[in-house]
Amino acid sequence: MPPSFTPPFTSSGRSALVQAPPWYYAGWLVNVEFAFDAGLGVAMVPPQLGVATGKGCVHFADWQSCGNDGQELLDPVYAQYRETIVVLEIAPGQGADARFYCPLIYVDQDISLLRGWLQGWPKKIGQTWLTRSLPLVHPAAAPLSKGSRLGASLSVKERRLVDATVTLTDEKTGRLGFLSAPTIGAVGWPDLTQPGIPAAPRYLRADIVDRVESGWTQGRATLRFHEHPVEELSLLGRVEATQASAGWMGITVRGALAA
Amino acid sequence: MPPSFTPPFTSSGRSALVQAPPWYYAGWLVNVEFAFDAGLGVAMVPPQLGVATGKGCVHFADWQSCGNDGQELLDPVYAQYRETIVVLEIAPGQGADARFYCPLIYVDQDISLLRGWLQGWPKKIGQTWLTRSLPLVHPAAAPLSKGSRLGASLSVKERRLVDATVTLTDEKTGRLGFLSAPTIGAVGWPDLTQPGIPAAPRYLRADIVDRVESGWTQGRATLRFHEHPVEELSLLGRVEATQASAGWMGITVRGALAA
Amino acid sequence: MPPSFTPPFTSSGRSALVQAPPWYYAGWLVNVEFAFDAGLGVAMVPPQLGVATGKGCVHFADWQSCGNDGQELLDPVYAQYRETIVVLEIAPGQGADARFYCPLIYVDQDISLLRGWLQGWPKKIGQTWLTRSLPLVHPAAAPLSKGSRLGASLSVKERRLVDATVTLTDEKTGRLGFLSAPTIGAVGWPDLTQPGIPAAPRYLRADIVDRVESGWTQGRATLRFHEHPVEELSLLGRVEATQASAGWMGITVRGALAA
Amino acid sequence: MPPSFTPPFTSSGRSALVQAPPWYYAGWLVNVEFAFDAGLGVAMVPPQLGVATGKGCVHFADWQSCGNDGQELLDPVYAQYRETIVVLEIAPGQGADARFYCPLIYVDQDISLLRGWLQGWPKKIGQTWLTRSLPLVHPAAAPLSKGSRLGASLSVKERRLVDATVTLTDEKTGRLGFLSAPTIGAVGWPDLTQPGIPAAPRYLRADIVDRVESGWTQGRATLRFHEHPVEELSLLGRVEATQASAGWMGITVRGALAA
Repeated sequence: MPPSFTPPFTSSGRSALVQAPPWYYAGWLVNVEFAFDAGLGVAMVPPQLGVATGKGCVHFADWQSCGNDGQELLDPVYAQYRETIVVLEIAPGQGADARFYCPLIYVDQDISLLRGWLQGWPKKIGQTWLTRSLPLVHPAAAPLSKGSRLGASLSVKERRLVDATVTLTDEKTGRLGFLSAPTIGAVGWPDLTQPGIPAAPRYLRADIVDRVESGWTQGRATLRFHEHPVEELSLLGRVEATQASAGWMGITVRGALAA
Repeated sequence: MPPSFTPPFTSSGRSALVQAPPWYYAGWLVNVEFAFDAGLGVAMVPPQLGVATGKGCVHFADWQSCGNDGQELLDPVYAQYRETIVVLEIAPGQGADARFYCPLIYVDQDISLLRGWLQGWPKKIGQTWLTRSLPLVHPAAAPLSKGSRLGASLSVKERRLVDATVTLTDEKTGRLGFLSAPTIGAVGWPDLTQPGIPAAPRYLRADIVDRVESGWTQGRATLRFHEHPVEELSLLGRVEATQASAGWMGITVRGALAA
Repeated sequence: MPPSFTPPFTSSGRSALVQAPPWYYAGWLVNVEFAFDAGLGVAMVPPQLGVATGKGCVHFADWQSCGNDGQELLDPVYAQYRETIVVLEIAPGQGADARFYCPLIYVDQDISLLRGWLQGWPKKIGQTWLTRSLPLVHPAAAPLSKGSRLGASLSVKERRLVDATVTLTDEKTGRLGFLSAPTIGAVGWPDLTQPGIPAAPRYLRADIVDRVESGWTQGRATLRFHEHPVEELSLLGRVEATQASAGWMGITVRGALAA
Repeated sequence: MPPSFTPPFTSSGRSALVQAPPWYYAGWLVNVEFAFDAGLGVAMVPPQLGVATGKGCVHFADWQSCGNDGQELLDPVYAQYRETIVVLEIAPGQGADARFYCPLIYVDQDISLLRGWLQGWPKKIGQTWLTRSLPLVHPAAAPLSKGSRLGASLSVKERRLVDATVTLTDEKTGRLGFLSAPTIGAVGWPDLTQPGIPAAPRYLRADIVDRVESGWTQGRATLRFHEHPVEELSLLGRVEATQASAGWMGITVRGALAA
């Protein structure tokens, strides 16, 4: 076995919190695109990356993830987690393509937390719930068909931070948010031997390959960011849900690229 | 609003832990049928119901549930829960049909806990994980097709109690366990004003209507019950997984019937 | 071993969720007495018990609990839980002594949930946090001395429901809330074979003996009940914290008495 | 406000997962020293730090922690966490003093997880339970006096990993484990833009000042490390509890020092 990819550093590497990529992810996603006052984006978009355009997206995801041998699928406490991803579109300048930046993201398992930090997704622990569409016609199944209603929520440190609802239409739609353009994150760790010097972030994006999708079913959404004494989502001011979708997607991450 | 169906008893009834049925359930189930030494069933089958036949089933379920207005689907912390259901077949005597008895069941939400107690499902809090089949061809998706591997587990009070794995075939199969025959449970509450007198259980079965199913995909399974200082599953001795299946199902419960 | 005191009903009784009393409890409590508009008490005080006086108390408790053999203390996931108890004073009529009624209570372990139901404490699952006073002089110890600041919170279904703070004085004080007078609760279960008929509650109070206390240190408090789509605490309107205390207490419950 | 000390990197720094030190910690600790086959220490002690002596210690801790303004104590979901710390004594060579190395540690809150990583404590999420001694004479209080029995446990990914019991004597005792000598940890992160190159750890120790203690009450202990498919504690082979203690301690961490 190779040396430990991450702490803990044991001689076998077996218990390293994260094993080296590739990392395979497949999940159910509810995506809510929103508009906000672009000027308020300075609270969370690094100026060297550009300025916020006033478009963002919240992704609620119910993932299954594994490494090359797929062992996690046989002991799914290692494979499954839920997360809420917030991304903001940035306008990097003339001639460049649209990109997103991920200022805030919340997950419920430690393995995903660290995988995220290494890719520039600044994860904290949070509890995400999202309705799933089951392939049944039944009042509790919320199937992928017109009129089904889905809900999603995020809570952080015992407070509700995000609430969303989506009512499905019978239309297919395109990709939203981080599904639609490269998404940049910040990686950086302070050095405690010099605690007065904050971390200097480096900007990366995940190196994603082999995407598969089920297609995205359109919906109409409501979205609310609640005030929180620590979390900063409400600094984006009043948000308006502009589009929404739901569906399944699989991706493979094999590392990261400079942004 | 009618008076509170269950505690707490407020004048509005709004915060009653459980509202009156009907209750709608739709979920993903992984079912593992097992054989055990029938004589060991006396540890958990009430003699007045008959004797264990040596056949049982463990159902791992990832449910979505709601009442008539479906509000829970818009705030899914109220709709979703996971549980592990153990049922044992009982032979009630000449000419009678097969039935199951539920001696032990574990769930992760309070609403379902109390709904269960009222139906005779003796629920305790436990953590269930089960791999889901996603409609994608991807290493992390475990789709409903030949060769996909699924895992499931139950933990109670911080100890692993059940582990199971299922490798799917490409065959459809029939109903297993509580999906295949009426399943009886015991309802009873001790009276603390006479704490020396234990509860006298009454035997009921859920009144289930309007079942919908996706069909059941067959699998080969492994199953293990671990020893536990409080839980009693290992009293069934050595178990052998005999059949397995996975799929989606919806049901409606409108009350309970005498067993 | 005697028959199962509660479900599950196995032949050994070993895995019954709750064993027969006596039940021993020792814990750290932060108590906040509050005033509210007495007329609003009709939302949660049964009229046959009397009317609310406009005085209530919230108790935040960090318990350790065991049975006669004390085994739970050797495996403390079975012994420890946290809860938030709301009690309202009721004026039962001329010449009678003050009493409290418990309309709402929230706990984080299943064993305590059921013990509560049997005593008339209408428990639901909720997450309670409360600062502890440690016997150290240190910025993080919040010792039981003048100026120490304590916080407490309750969350239910991923939403903050109660927030309180207490700043200790150097005075000792008397008993507050359920520590000061008998406290009545409602016990009752609907019969699912007749789901149209709600439960008819019976009024009980715990039979408490052998109380030990460390003395209660006085504090000044703030208290806030947040709005919640299901929980009803905010129906008490604007509340004002009138007194507060913190300390340790042990009690034994050996059953229940008619109220 | 200064820039973010850690991710997320917002312009206010308010929601950084970790704020810059100093960090204040006060807690209740149960400490179990153990002997193991020193040769088995190679599984988790980096050779450049020396070799294991065959002595180790497991610390079960119930912490309260805050920064300079102490705000966390008013909202204790931010202040409180429990953890299990494993340290192994290393013999660094002639004339040098005893030191410990921390190969494995498990905590239940994200803030502490990251603070740990920065100090070289390789934390993963795990659930720790430990009996507390309350200042009461009561069957559930486990007071700090002769004959009281305490339990402690650790679970990781739904499996019990460590069980310990301690029976208190009436003797005071000295410091054990990381309380008695500097303790070294490894800090290092892989660079995902070069995922084939594992992290190169740097060895640090926390810069701890201002320790206060309540004194340590001696106990006799039992200790068991369970097998686990991922975690490696059982690679230390058969362990024997040699000493134990319980008490309160406060420390301040103001950064880290090279080991």
